[in-house]
Amino acid sequence: MTDPLNNSLRFTPLPLQSVTLDDRFWRPRLEVNRTATLPFLYEQLERVGAIDALDLRPRPLRVPCHPGSAVTPQMWWDSDIAKWIETAAYALATHPDAALEAQVDALVEKIAAAQQPDGYFNTFFTAIESQNRLTNERDWHELYNAGHLIEAAVAYTQATGKTAFLDVMERYIRFLMGVYGPHPGQKHGYPGHEEIELALVKLSRLTGKREYLEFARYFVDERGRQPYFFDEEARARGEEPSSELLSHGDALPYEYMQAHKPMREQDKVVGHAVRAMYLYSAMADLAAELGDESLRQACERLWADLTSRRLYVTGGLGPSAHNEGMTTNYDLPNDTAYAETCAAVGLVFWAQRMLNLTGDGQYTDLMERALYNNVLSGVAQDGRRFFYDNPLESHGDKHRWEWHSCPCCPPNVSRLLASLGGYVYGRTADGIAVHLYAGGSARFEVEGQPVTFYQRTEYPWEGKVELEFDLERPARFTLSLRLPRWCRDPKLSVNGEAVDLSDARDGHVHLTREWSAQDRVELNLPMPVERVYVHPNVRQDAGLVALQRGPVVYCVEEADVDVPLHQLALPRGADLTATFEPELLGGVSVVRGEAEVEEPGDWGGTLYRTAPPRQITTSLCAVPYALWDQREPGEMRVWLREEVREAPR
Amino acid sequence: MTDPLNNSLRFTPLPLQSVTLDDRFWRPRLEVNRTATLPFLYEQLERVGAIDALDLRPRPLRVPCHPGSAVTPQMWWDSDIAKWIETAAYALATHPDAALEAQVDALVEKIAAAQQPDGYFNTFFTAIESQNRLTNERDWHELYNAGHLIEAAVAYTQATGKTAFLDVMERYIRFLMGVYGPHPGQKHGYPGHEEIELALVKLSRLTGKREYLEFARYFVDERGRQPYFFDEEARARGEEPSSELLSHGDALPYEYMQAHKPMREQDKVVGHAVRAMYLYSAMADLAAELGDESLRQACERLWADLTSRRLYVTGGLGPSAHNEGMTTNYDLPNDTAYAETCAAVGLVFWAQRMLNLTGDGQYTDLMERALYNNVLSGVAQDGRRFFYDNPLESHGDKHRWEWHSCPCCPPNVSRLLASLGGYVYGRTADGIAVHLYAGGSARFEVEGQPVTFYQRTEYPWEGKVELEFDLERPARFTLSLRLPRWCRDPKLSVNGEAVDLSDARDGHVHLTREWSAQDRVELNLPMPVERVYVHPNVRQDAGLVALQRGPVVYCVEEADVDVPLHQLALPRGADLTATFEPELLGGVSVVRGEAEVEEPGDWGGTLYRTAPPRQITTSLCAVPYALWDQREPGEMRVWLREEVREAPR
Repeated sequence: MTDPLNNSLRFTPLPLQSVTLDDRFWRPRLEVNRTATLPFLYEQLERVGAIDALDLRPRPLRVPCHPGSAVTPQMWWDSDIAKWIETAAYALATHPDAALEAQVDALVEKIAAAQQPDGYFNTFFTAIESQNRLTNERDWHELYNAGHLIEAAVAYTQATGKTAFLDVMERYIRFLMGVYGPHPGQKHGYPGHEEIELALVKLSRLTGKREYLEFARYFVDERGRQPYFFDEEARARGEEPSSELLSHGDALPYEYMQAHKPMREQDKVVGHAVRAMYLYSAMADLAAELGDESLRQACERLWADLTSRRLYVTGGLGPSAHNEGMTTNYDLPNDTAYAETCAAVGLVFWAQRMLNLTGDGQYTDLMERALYNNVLSGVAQDGRRFFYDNPLESHGDKHRWEWHSCPCCPPNVSRLLASLGGYVYGRTADGIAVHLYAGGSARFEVEGQPVTFYQRTEYPWEGKVELEFDLERPARFTLSLRLPRWCRDPKLSVNGEAVDLSDARDGHVHLTREWSAQDRVELNLPMPVERVYVHPNVRQDAGLVALQRGPVVYCVEEADVDVPLHQLALPRGADLTATFEPELLGGVSVVRGEAEVEEPGDWGGTLYRTAPPRQITTSLCAVPYALWDQREPGEMRVWLREEVREAPR
Repeated sequence: MTDPLNNSLRFTPLPLQSVTLDDRFWRPRLEVNRTATLPFLYEQLERVGAIDALDLRPRPLRVPCHPGSAVTPQMWWDSDIAKWIETAAYALATHPDAALEAQVDALVEKIAAAQQPDGYFNTFFTAIESQNRLTNERDWHELYNAGHLIEAAVAYTQATGKTAFLDVMERYIRFLMGVYGPHPGQKHGYPGHEEIELALVKLSRLTGKREYLEFARYFVDERGRQPYFFDEEARARGEEPSSELLSHGDALPYEYMQAHKPMREQDKVVGHAVRAMYLYSAMADLAAELGDESLRQACERLWADLTSRRLYVTGGLGPSAHNEGMTTNYDLPNDTAYAETCAAVGLVFWAQRMLNLTGDGQYTDLMERALYNNVLSGVAQDGRRFFYDNPLESHGDKHRWEWHSCPCCPPNVSRLLASLGGYVYGRTADGIAVHLYAGGSARFEVEGQPVTFYQRTEYPWEGKVELEFDLERPARFTLSLRLPRWCRDPKLSVNGEAVDLSDARDGHVHLTREWSAQDRVELNLPMPVERVYVHPNVRQDAGLVALQRGPVVYCVEEADVDVPLHQLALPRGADLTATFEPELLGGVSVVRGEAEVEEPGDWGGTLYRTAPPRQITTSLCAVPYALWDQREPGEMRVWLREEVREAPR
């Protein structure tokens, strides 16, 4: 049952059961995720009625998203439950828990009972609007729900070996494979909200059944063909295809859901950001599984577009609330940044798949950036308050909430954290690779011999990582270590001997030798505080600078300074130092330095004057962006004004 | 028929007939206003049906402002026609024109015919919704329309001596004085959209009838009293007073229309900006006419609030499109600035009245700032394209339009320009004052002797102003000259002899002497290019600088530079020079200098990096803000990044 199809993957994730994460940074976060967020999310699902909805008792419950909208949050409750089960499954993989398992089993039983005789499964379109079943895939998320359910079933099977849920989902998929396809009488369609494609790859990997892979490829290949499926579908409903989805500003029809042209012709990341990330993830998977070169090239073009023109320094993407997605090149507003938590989670998914496909550490670098910043921002340290959108600047009126009418983000962060072990290491053809530095261990086999690999580190607060193996007899294999691009001068030693890193390629150093339990590997990734500048085409950050240390992007919060944040100006070249503060926010490294601040004291009653503002020196303290809005409410800024003291040439 | 009531005015405007404006700056603008804008606006009123509406033939014409809204633009068509007549009247005062006068007379005839037997006049609430007459003053603008009609009638009477229109309006006002008032059976109410108050003062000044002044005072005094009139009025309609007007964010009920508390208790400029300006104008008038000290103090408090915390450098106000009005202290966004043209026109009205009330030139300074910048921005040099909102930054997507569903601004600018002569001079108890520097002449009498006074100047492009009198025999009187605050070092000479300006007070120098036709007065107002800074509490302009020369605020347009405007940084202290360019935009002074610009050339495909952007020098050219968007479409910015090269202390 493990990955029979992945012929061309450079790295294969380790099973969750084989990885532990127990360092100072991750242990408390993963513990809170498992013991606080997981039950909290279940309570919320119960509270809103999503659990009861599994019973299919029709009730007069129809809550439109917006007045007059035909879309209701109930339409994706199935996916919310699925993400909860998926999270629970990952928790069970690392921390067996009979009560939790029974809780999942009870849900699976309801799901099985709610499955229709033909295999169809959707609580809303069975109990509430059965007349609308499979009539509006553009807007109504049936395939999206199916995708999340498949992911949940795969995870639950992998965690427990139980196949009841998987069986239900395979029946549903077989039903859907009858509905959608290239043959006459089938809908030549594809999802409105992509998700099922990547789920089908997971299902195929678990079951070894190539037909699921083919079904995913069908969706990807069909997408964007003309005449547009969503036009045909609208006409079948007796509607003109004149939805507002047809255009957003200058966008082409269906750019919103990346269906404006065939995927292999696309080279711009457009539309709804989460949908894009999920789809591209599946494309990268399919490129690997099928050796599909043109799909891989499409992925690489899209990646280059995103990362060279559209990505926030926090790893966030999709600046606009209007379409929950992309706008124009270099448009990165800070205070109105949407940068949905789910989009950053989706970027982690895509980046991991690109890494596994190509072996290139550049993907891990961005995966790490998204993870430590935009993703972690999505959940408070108590595990019970969330951000849906993640602006890089707040004027004091933006705060974490406990629930949302569209509660996609909380379980998305939660399932990512619960499965984080799967992102840290990768099996290679001849050894093991370390993608993320995080204290803990990994178990794998070399030539039939079990090996346990240990990382000890205070990452991301310190860049020193100590690595060692536990194995009975020496064995020859390759240890691949990522060398993050944020680090200018990494140092590596094996048993005290420096390793030359000058020939490191693809963002990794590959150490092939005979390893024994006595070997000591020490990686040092010096992490001074860095000033980060954005491309001059980004209007919103002109004249501004961000602070980063290692993978962590910093922000300034009103709680730490006593002036309006726009008045702060950071002199270029002035000293900035990092200090670990064990009492602050659960223990974090803060960045301190001096800044100039404009003195409002001498302005009298005037609003304008010809004399420049007088500046005085104040002390600056910046905290990790992901942890903002957990103290007194107030302003926040990632991008700070910079003051250039000398001629810049 | 001239101003029998104004007991306490420091300055009294000259009649339009006594003033000519014929300099290089104003002559073409006023000519275009009279010969292009005026007929163009009439055509537009005809085109939309506003002229036909005067015939009261009910037609199925009801065009809501927004879907579902009970408000339609037709509700204020009467005011649009009134502003057109008012403009035409001012044009007739300075340029008699039989055809134009006949055109107005024809409109007046229709208006007289449409007046109802009881005196009521409103085309919409007579022909279309007579059942709703006088039931919703909060939203439906009946008193607003009446106000504009009164202003038009007053202007037309002053221009032509004809009283037919005035008679109709006095009948209407007498009707309204029966409807609204303190007595039992009357509505204890006041306008939803203020305007009639200032019109009633004009009517009172023209007719000498104090009752109109009292009616205006009643509206001002009643405003904001509890229980709120608009609540009562809603209940009388059978509605709950739960309109969205009740609150905007943290605003109090009816702050939107300045009716949240009594005017004498107000000290913040709130709500819809145009309404506020019209109301404050009337309050200043009433304070002068009635010697009402508490009303004057309220005006002064509101003025201080506006000018110390809420005013754009262009003289614009009301940053928010949401309420077409005010937000919070120091909130001055640039690219989303609403800064409605009508609001700046209203500020000119208010400032003139504060000037006339107090004699203080600070009001003229802001009147001049609004006039040369936000007001003139409202109309293109061809007189046929307009701005409704006047942002201080555009990303290239903001352009002038020919008409608007709410066409209040074009005729507002037009009537102000047509009556500009009334703003240039003021009669004082013992002479004449110059408020605005503009080439032309003014006629007035001293001791029964006619005096003609001449200004010769290239203002606002040059600060030299030559002044002389034409009078038969020498006469003793006072010549008061405004010394603009923007000028650091004004020089004044009389017959070549320097005048000491050190004791100038209230923004004026007062020259009392015996004047003769031989006297030559020369005022020099040096106008170097000035860098303007805003109070550090304004977040949106932090680190930015604006350019001003004399009263003219500059902007940079994409047409003049070949880089994205956000990349420009103006080095503090670098030379900036003004040059007059006769071929550009009808002849303007432009500001030239060097700026630093970030070089995007060496970034490769990266979006972020730790090396600062490389800067190169480019040439900067700035043009007067009011003239923007008249060449190739493109970006525009008033506030430019500033680069501080040396330590600022």
